[in-house]
Amino acid sequence: MKPYSELTREELLALKEELESAFEEIKGKGLKLDMSRGKPATAQLDMAEGLLGIVNTNDEVYTEDGTDCRNYGLLTGIPEAKKLFADICEVKPEQVIVYGNASLTVMFDAVSRAYTHGVAGCTPWSQLERVKFLCPVPGYDRHFAITEYFGIEMINVPMTPEGPDMDLVEKLVSEDEAVKGIWCVPKYSNPQGYSYSDETVRRFAALKPAAKDFRIYWDNAYCIHHLYEEEDRQDRILNILDECEKAGNPDMVYEFVSTSKVSYPGAGVAAMASSVNNLKEAERHMKFQIISHDKLNQLRHVRYFKNLDGVKAHMMKHAAIMRPKFETVLKVLEEELGGLGIGEWTKPNGGYFISFDAMEGCAKKIVAKAKEAGLVMTGAGATYPYGKDPKDSNIRIAPTYPTPEELAVAGKIFVLSVKLVSVEKLLNA
Amino acid sequence: MKPYSELTREELLALKEELESAFEEIKGKGLKLDMSRGKPATAQLDMAEGLLGIVNTNDEVYTEDGTDCRNYGLLTGIPEAKKLFADICEVKPEQVIVYGNASLTVMFDAVSRAYTHGVAGCTPWSQLERVKFLCPVPGYDRHFAITEYFGIEMINVPMTPEGPDMDLVEKLVSEDEAVKGIWCVPKYSNPQGYSYSDETVRRFAALKPAAKDFRIYWDNAYCIHHLYEEEDRQDRILNILDECEKAGNPDMVYEFVSTSKVSYPGAGVAAMASSVNNLKEAERHMKFQIISHDKLNQLRHVRYFKNLDGVKAHMMKHAAIMRPKFETVLKVLEEELGGLGIGEWTKPNGGYFISFDAMEGCAKKIVAKAKEAGLVMTGAGATYPYGKDPKDSNIRIAPTYPTPEELAVAGKIFVLSVKLVSVEKLLNA
Repeated sequence: MKPYSELTREELLALKEELESAFEEIKGKGLKLDMSRGKPATAQLDMAEGLLGIVNTNDEVYTEDGTDCRNYGLLTGIPEAKKLFADICEVKPEQVIVYGNASLTVMFDAVSRAYTHGVAGCTPWSQLERVKFLCPVPGYDRHFAITEYFGIEMINVPMTPEGPDMDLVEKLVSEDEAVKGIWCVPKYSNPQGYSYSDETVRRFAALKPAAKDFRIYWDNAYCIHHLYEEEDRQDRILNILDECEKAGNPDMVYEFVSTSKVSYPGAGVAAMASSVNNLKEAERHMKFQIISHDKLNQLRHVRYFKNLDGVKAHMMKHAAIMRPKFETVLKVLEEELGGLGIGEWTKPNGGYFISFDAMEGCAKKIVAKAKEAGLVMTGAGATYPYGKDPKDSNIRIAPTYPTPEELAVAGKIFVLSVKLVSVEKLLNA
Repeated sequence: MKPYSELTREELLALKEELESAFEEIKGKGLKLDMSRGKPATAQLDMAEGLLGIVNTNDEVYTEDGTDCRNYGLLTGIPEAKKLFADICEVKPEQVIVYGNASLTVMFDAVSRAYTHGVAGCTPWSQLERVKFLCPVPGYDRHFAITEYFGIEMINVPMTPEGPDMDLVEKLVSEDEAVKGIWCVPKYSNPQGYSYSDETVRRFAALKPAAKDFRIYWDNAYCIHHLYEEEDRQDRILNILDECEKAGNPDMVYEFVSTSKVSYPGAGVAAMASSVNNLKEAERHMKFQIISHDKLNQLRHVRYFKNLDGVKAHMMKHAAIMRPKFETVLKVLEEELGGLGIGEWTKPNGGYFISFDAMEGCAKKIVAKAKEAGLVMTGAGATYPYGKDPKDSNIRIAPTYPTPEELAVAGKIFVLSVKLVSVEKLLNA
């Protein structure tokens, strides 16, 4: 089929009628489908059944250094969990603090701590007139929500397949002392699935911030979340902590990871990797907040996964479930929208999302249309700070939670919605 | 033996020599004993072995409303955990939010939230010149540490066996808009083991605060932590939330509870009970922090304890282990210090501590002396804001962690230290 833009008004009108009839038919089925959040499917969670009862008796509750995981103690995590997360992040165990079940909380805390007590002896942000964060867009709505909640001004930085526009990042970070941070999902980015190039990571490490308390908030949420077994289809990124060290900026990064999409979203373990300096500062704060996180759950994870190889092997089981889902969606998009000139999308090697860019001004309408037929997508605009996509074109597709059968139908509803809204736009042009 | 104050100088000198020789003997044993923290003993934790693997298969991970506890969702806790904590706090389930493993974190968060975003639409504390908290003394060091960390000015309010001096509380709360809160451990208080009288609770509920954002931080840490089975030896306090409602102050209290000393200090579940209004405000904040707390651990607790009766029965097993320890310490104190006029102590029906008041100016020296012989006590002064006990007399005794055999020795070291330091004081008077 030829691009919609080359269709005559009559052809568009005929197409519209045809699409509307197809849409009404599918709408009539009263479906309830959800592609809104990056939620693992039940089948993925079922694979970690052995984790549930792996610490089962009183004899099994002790760490390798003899600490009773049931009692108080070990504020920064059990040694074996530090080791496991250090291996995941390719750092030393002393560069890791192990927390509770949510890396989002660790990120919120990092911002909240800077707001109430400041970073590295600098003025707490609550006492400053203006604080700014750079936000690569499209990006993760929950990151933007945290900075918005603390009244931090967010500045959009366009993403490219290599990572954020580094010319702009370098300029803003070096010129403006109010710029205190940047949100990054460096590998299999949310929502595009892009991974930062070596050059991008090196340019990050070599930043010369105007603000002494500038930090890179490096949310490595999908660091081991590949969709393919083949090494050449597994993205790799440079180790930002190493690169920062080499560049003379050892304290410039907080790296966040978790097992939310390894074991369980609701009962996993989160960690932060950073310089020993930064961790000491975090620990000074933490000792007022808690006596220790849930060490039994840390122990369960180490006992179940054993080591990095165990984690990687488990992630391949996830991939086996997720890959066909991504491929189903990509196939529908290619077959139904390929060559029509009404949308573009990414084809990631990992992570949890596909990013779709509709014609300008169409995203909100497409999401609304899909909802009419029972398909819930992430709200249009959610991938931008303040929920404002300046072009109203980006839509995040989260294909992991529905079953493959549901996905095939959801894909159909989605492409129909894209087509309908695009035809209407062209007719009204 | 007669009171030390009635001894002649010669008698005191002879006594000193005798005590020093006994002390040197025990010191020579190179003991390592710890009565510093309110830590349950291993035997107590061992009793909840069934909790560890109670959620063991994929079929067992669902709540009564069908939610998968492994996945995201249910921000404010699973329904059955809300019900259990509601029963513990004698409130309705909608008056409960269930959190992670530490009520300390919930308290820190409540203060941090007020500091960054304010309470009930009032100015965030970070933007105020002065914020004050009332601190019943002696009290819990970790409470005072939180308020000190946020630069909040702490005002001592003397404790009585009926609770804080309410004349002073009423005066300060009603006259000073800078007074935003008071830390309370209303039942089996830390460290005295006092429980607030009905009159005290009613006077709390009837407070007329000058500040609209004044809240009572009601840490009901020991609400079901009795040492005795007999009903007349179980302290009862009025339900503060009910009383506040009746008095027209429904939003004036945050109540904090946890299973840290029911199941596991390091892997329990914490909750906050309050008015629906207050919980809505807490939830608005929480949704930026986390997607959901560890619901599997909430589920484990409900499955294991079943209901309030199950929790109460379990607490009686704790009591059976703790009671002899408290009694051992109380017996040593009575036998060795009774009638000497060099110290007074409380005899609680529950909780985790015995409070000891030495002669003025002796607490620091006693704790240092005990340490010389290998016994670690809570630092003298810790029970007061800023670590400053104006009389240097209060010492917190935590008898739960050592074994009964260790306790007998620890008790001896303690009373020897008290006697020695007291004799020295009298000789130098």
